[in-house]
Amino acid sequence: MVDMAHTTVAHISGIAAHEGCEVTLRGWLHNRRSSGRIHFLTLRDGTGFIQAVMSKAAVGEDVFRQADHLGQETAIRIHGLVRADARAPGGYEIDVAQLEQVGPSQDYPITPKEHGVEYLLDHRHLWLRTERQQAILRIRHEVIDSIRTFFNERGFVLVDTPILTPAACEGTTTLFPVPYFDTATAFLTQSGQLYNEANAMALGRVYCFGPTFRAEKSKTRRHLTEFWMVEPEMAYAALDDVMALGEELVAAVIGRVLANRRRELAVLERDTAPLERIRTPFPRVSYDEAVEILRQRGLPFEWGGDFGSPDETALAEHFDQPVIVHRFPAAAKAFYMKADPQRPEASLSVDVLAPEGYGEIIGGGQREDDYDVLCERVRAHDLPEDTFSWYLDLRRYGSVPHGGFGMGVERVVAWMCGLAHVREAIPYPRMLHRLTP
Amino acid sequence: MVDMAHTTVAHISGIAAHEGCEVTLRGWLHNRRSSGRIHFLTLRDGTGFIQAVMSKAAVGEDVFRQADHLGQETAIRIHGLVRADARAPGGYEIDVAQLEQVGPSQDYPITPKEHGVEYLLDHRHLWLRTERQQAILRIRHEVIDSIRTFFNERGFVLVDTPILTPAACEGTTTLFPVPYFDTATAFLTQSGQLYNEANAMALGRVYCFGPTFRAEKSKTRRHLTEFWMVEPEMAYAALDDVMALGEELVAAVIGRVLANRRRELAVLERDTAPLERIRTPFPRVSYDEAVEILRQRGLPFEWGGDFGSPDETALAEHFDQPVIVHRFPAAAKAFYMKADPQRPEASLSVDVLAPEGYGEIIGGGQREDDYDVLCERVRAHDLPEDTFSWYLDLRRYGSVPHGGFGMGVERVVAWMCGLAHVREAIPYPRMLHRLTP
Repeated sequence: MVDMAHTTVAHISGIAAHEGCEVTLRGWLHNRRSSGRIHFLTLRDGTGFIQAVMSKAAVGEDVFRQADHLGQETAIRIHGLVRADARAPGGYEIDVAQLEQVGPSQDYPITPKEHGVEYLLDHRHLWLRTERQQAILRIRHEVIDSIRTFFNERGFVLVDTPILTPAACEGTTTLFPVPYFDTATAFLTQSGQLYNEANAMALGRVYCFGPTFRAEKSKTRRHLTEFWMVEPEMAYAALDDVMALGEELVAAVIGRVLANRRRELAVLERDTAPLERIRTPFPRVSYDEAVEILRQRGLPFEWGGDFGSPDETALAEHFDQPVIVHRFPAAAKAFYMKADPQRPEASLSVDVLAPEGYGEIIGGGQREDDYDVLCERVRAHDLPEDTFSWYLDLRRYGSVPHGGFGMGVERVVAWMCGLAHVREAIPYPRMLHRLTP
Repeated sequence: MVDMAHTTVAHISGIAAHEGCEVTLRGWLHNRRSSGRIHFLTLRDGTGFIQAVMSKAAVGEDVFRQADHLGQETAIRIHGLVRADARAPGGYEIDVAQLEQVGPSQDYPITPKEHGVEYLLDHRHLWLRTERQQAILRIRHEVIDSIRTFFNERGFVLVDTPILTPAACEGTTTLFPVPYFDTATAFLTQSGQLYNEANAMALGRVYCFGPTFRAEKSKTRRHLTEFWMVEPEMAYAALDDVMALGEELVAAVIGRVLANRRRELAVLERDTAPLERIRTPFPRVSYDEAVEILRQRGLPFEWGGDFGSPDETALAEHFDQPVIVHRFPAAAKAFYMKADPQRPEASLSVDVLAPEGYGEIIGGGQREDDYDVLCERVRAHDLPEDTFSWYLDLRRYGSVPHGGFGMGVERVVAWMCGLAHVREAIPYPRMLHRLTP
């Protein structure tokens, strides 16, 4: 018997380097098929999946019979020879010489049969062990890392904005209040936007990247109550700069996912053609032009409102590319959005809509930089002036044209992965009726 | 007159590339000294600070006189010739040919004179514009990026754990409750620990990195109610692996800050010698040995408790290096910490203490992986068993030895920067009496 504690431990993702050698793998039994003389064990170790072949002839009667009773997700160590096999999914198999149970598992709740989504969400802590969920999480990791790399390489400084805030950024009906000791009420942030503006006046180009919260009672496939958002902000920047930055970012994320996560996209059976045909520059249309397109396509859209999901889908279908829509009606956007000097009923705002029905992934624009105009807006929106006094300071002391946007991570991940619902795009989704596990 | 909109825009951080050329800089007036014929203007643009020299002879009477009245933090564009000057802090100055005011600023609240810290915290949105605060934020950026790079390069998967959680991880007295719609109460996370364990069973090696919350009424220089924490977790790992990982991480962060942020450390007048002399391996002592050292140094320490600040400081002083202290009394650590099989009153736990009085920066250990023992612990700690049922599942289905730790970002930033208080190590500090701006 080999003492496995003193052998070479390999990871499945790097198994190719061990071809022809004996290694130890440590992981969990994902699946087992058996004939009278051979067990085919699928082992997973977090880095990948591999088939381990255990023959009675090689391990002897006792060890072979022990494996008869191993339940799904039993923690096991195996030792054996790595062998190339063109038929194997990863190109390699392992001939088991020895097997050791680390932790038992009987009656594992998630079997290869179909389970309902509420059941799976109740078992999210175990559901993550499936090949599909692991692929999604690795793509999420790639998306987040590609975003951070994008901004870091361009000299943006990460400035984390607070989660506990004294006031609302946009609207108050969808805030989660938090009693703050005995003295105050805090609200969970909906956006780092206002703080980002202060940070951009200090550091020029900044971004924040953290969880944000919306106490929305929606139950659509695009809504979570807790989700991650990246928000860049640039001083001395106009709407065109904001659009260019958003376009570059989306292109960079797609490029990284396609370059580094082919295996995961294949696990998800994601048709990558719609991602591969994306090219910059993205089509850019004004809100007015977008309304025209919707009407031409037979959608009864009224000028003035924000787009609904069917409108967003129709627009993206029209171009078969991400679409940049700019200059929404001022009334449809937040109080801090700058009015278009050419046409004050329009705002210098921008949304980026993803194709394939994934809808708005970016929203932003140029901010109002005039003190008097902004004061008026704060009053018109019935916002508490003293709470916004610090924000108005940014227009009192050296105001400059500036802008930025927010991009929701889960929507981008859902799009990259081709998911029907954002709930799978975050490890532990929080929704109207879901706070566990 | 040059139309500055159509000239080369340079950033101060990259000014060397423009020596001998005319450029436009866009930023804010940080400071002004004047003689009758020359203004010395310090311009900042977020990437750095530079002295701009404006002579009456070069710009003419009118422009020169206009600059007489520019208040601190006026937003300005200047156009002029970049000239090397060995006496200048950044090595370059600019001879101003033209100046344009973008946004006025009068009676800026933060002047070069001394202000009290509460006043500065009330004006945090403006305080960030100072050279010192910018240096801290850039070092924070470097620390965070070095941490993420460290884990990404080692194959750890980023798995974001939830902020809104249904139950407490450690203790319940320091939780912020959040009413969750009409149906439930959520709590702001204190640690991603429990979720990390589920994620490690799925993906092998994982980390989370996000804001965490403690409703502590402490007012020490090491406490914030909202702070950022990175938490790695590894399956098939023991206490020694956890200690090795923590040591490598701390060394990597110090290395990156020293390599890339010399300029910022100089702004902060940080004596870098104590950072430069740090070497791996760090000294490792058991809790028992640490108690012995404290007693030898005349501190009246009782076996059994956690270390206080003076104890941590004394231990780190003793070694003049970060110190790894392992095997704390089980009673002093969280319910999920594994007991030392050699000596059950001790736990397989570890803290890393920073030198120079910065105290605990890492806390972690090996987790209890036995189902029955953990059940007993949950009961002994009076934790609600049904809420922890999902967590116990991790021991029901393929339990393996595993461990990890948490590292608080603000404490590391405060240490790197040599700050007296963690409140400057985060952009918008949240403390017992501080929720604004």
